[in-house]
Amino acid sequence: MKIVVDCMGGDNAPYSTVEGIVSAINEFNVEIIAIGDKNILEENFNKYTFDKSKLEIIHTSEIILNEDKPVKAIRSKKDSSMVVALNLVKEGKADAIVSAGNTGALLAGGLFILGRIKGVDRPALCTFLPNKKGMSVLLDAGANADCKPRNLLEFGVMGSIYANKILKINSPKVGIVNVGEEEGKGNELTKKSYELLKSNEDINFVGNVEARNIPYGYSDVIVCDGFTGNVILKLIEGVAMSIFSMLKEIFTNSIKTKIGATLLKGDLVDMKRKLDYTEYGGAPFLGVNGALIKAHGSSNAKAIKNAIKQSIKFVEGNVLNEIKLKIDKLGVDNIE
Amino acid sequence: MKIVVDCMGGDNAPYSTVEGIVSAINEFNVEIIAIGDKNILEENFNKYTFDKSKLEIIHTSEIILNEDKPVKAIRSKKDSSMVVALNLVKEGKADAIVSAGNTGALLAGGLFILGRIKGVDRPALCTFLPNKKGMSVLLDAGANADCKPRNLLEFGVMGSIYANKILKINSPKVGIVNVGEEEGKGNELTKKSYELLKSNEDINFVGNVEARNIPYGYSDVIVCDGFTGNVILKLIEGVAMSIFSMLKEIFTNSIKTKIGATLLKGDLVDMKRKLDYTEYGGAPFLGVNGALIKAHGSSNAKAIKNAIKQSIKFVEGNVLNEIKLKIDKLGVDNIE
Repeated sequence: MKIVVDCMGGDNAPYSTVEGIVSAINEFNVEIIAIGDKNILEENFNKYTFDKSKLEIIHTSEIILNEDKPVKAIRSKKDSSMVVALNLVKEGKADAIVSAGNTGALLAGGLFILGRIKGVDRPALCTFLPNKKGMSVLLDAGANADCKPRNLLEFGVMGSIYANKILKINSPKVGIVNVGEEEGKGNELTKKSYELLKSNEDINFVGNVEARNIPYGYSDVIVCDGFTGNVILKLIEGVAMSIFSMLKEIFTNSIKTKIGATLLKGDLVDMKRKLDYTEYGGAPFLGVNGALIKAHGSSNAKAIKNAIKQSIKFVEGNVLNEIKLKIDKLGVDNIE
Repeated sequence: MKIVVDCMGGDNAPYSTVEGIVSAINEFNVEIIAIGDKNILEENFNKYTFDKSKLEIIHTSEIILNEDKPVKAIRSKKDSSMVVALNLVKEGKADAIVSAGNTGALLAGGLFILGRIKGVDRPALCTFLPNKKGMSVLLDAGANADCKPRNLLEFGVMGSIYANKILKINSPKVGIVNVGEEEGKGNELTKKSYELLKSNEDINFVGNVEARNIPYGYSDVIVCDGFTGNVILKLIEGVAMSIFSMLKEIFTNSIKTKIGATLLKGDLVDMKRKLDYTEYGGAPFLGVNGALIKAHGSSNAKAIKNAIKQSIKFVEGNVLNEIKLKIDKLGVDNIE
């Protein structure tokens, strides 16, 4: 198996990408194609000990920056690490791509270069979401701000396959984010999507999930439009961070609370880490015709390694073909 | 000033409504019309000491239950405490109504009985949202699952007046919930709403607010469609509650953490209360032609008292007339 890594994308590139690749080669014995400025990459890889036969470096002269306009960047920066990496997957020279670069550009690149799986109207970004019981997946996390009911059905089908293959959940429970649990609640989108998901036999649809129950893991696959999904992810982050910063203030209130905080510190750090969804590798762009894993922009070496691990599972689990089979069976191309 | 209270609505009715009314009369010297089963109400009011000349009880024979279908309940239960209370406001016999009853029925009753303010397309439920700096208001909190851009403009105008009059914020900052801060981000609704809010001179529009910044108080008035607003409120509740339950587990992990927890307990209880939006009285239904305050279904006596206090401020602040003036000036009736 060969994984191509866009080494120039992300806030800590290429240092964290290089270190993450080295860890991945050492731990998973995987072959990696590293794309980026050859001089810089070689200099950084030379700092580490690993089986160099597992690594190939391809030189590129351009970088897609975070501030670049996505579509324009993909079209004009032909020799960027991201575009060259995507082309390798398209040409079958790599089995999957991992990138921590500009999200919009990566999604646009996925659509333009890899293309959509036949029958998929809108590919979706699918992220892990830690909950009290364990882990669920949420899609769409932000690729499609406006969605149609058929999109949510496709998200449910693709998310089920992903949760099954990657999280090893049998018959994952699929729920729609909604303002009430009863059928008939919600906006036009969720009402119509409910009907579509309910009548599909391939997924284990459990109905609506109220936002207050998301942190408790009421469903394994959480389906929503990309606007709502993005609001959910960022709000969880914001609420958790603001509570932790309030806790921090309490901890320095008095000598009493300072002592209390010292006694709790280790457990609190563990809890904070458990809640941080960026710790759990990357988010696949499900529905494009290739294994595309978006790593968080602020990924450190460990996150890059985890994203590579995830791409390996994606390929080994044959997720792409499973999606093709199930979407073909759906035959929703004539549903609005 | 006369406030009418639907005494039969809410999980703890009529005990908490009666106790809340007594506190309000004692603290604010306000006149109250209490609506409900006269025997039960008299029996409960007789337990308390207060100026009885400030209280009038009106008997009703029906109750709108939480499981009742909203529109049907309002139309068929003519002698329910909620419908009779709404009619008193419509007829000018009371200045405001407070109810902890069935939310859907109260909103439907507000629309059918009080009617909309001329020029308001969709009235919105407006809740307080505690943040790190203090307090903001969020609307729509769930009255309208699907919204048009003109609705969000109206929410911005009405929310500004409310934040100014009730929270005493000068020139409140108004922001749209969105997936990115830059202009041009978002779904069709937020993109078009941005244009409308930006070009309005009566409000202090500060642009888009990402969900992760909501808990930090980046804007005083948070504007969104009712689906998103409801998801936000419930998710904040769910994330906060799940973090507190995780903390609770940590606190009993070991003798060390038990001692730590004991030292922090008082401060943690304060913090939890500060985050609980149900503590801050009720939510007005802005845009209907009357002062209508929805108290939380699980309101205790203190919450009912706070909702009455809020209705007094609403009337004293002349919120209704301010909204009428500003909406008239808007002239958005010809905007789609």
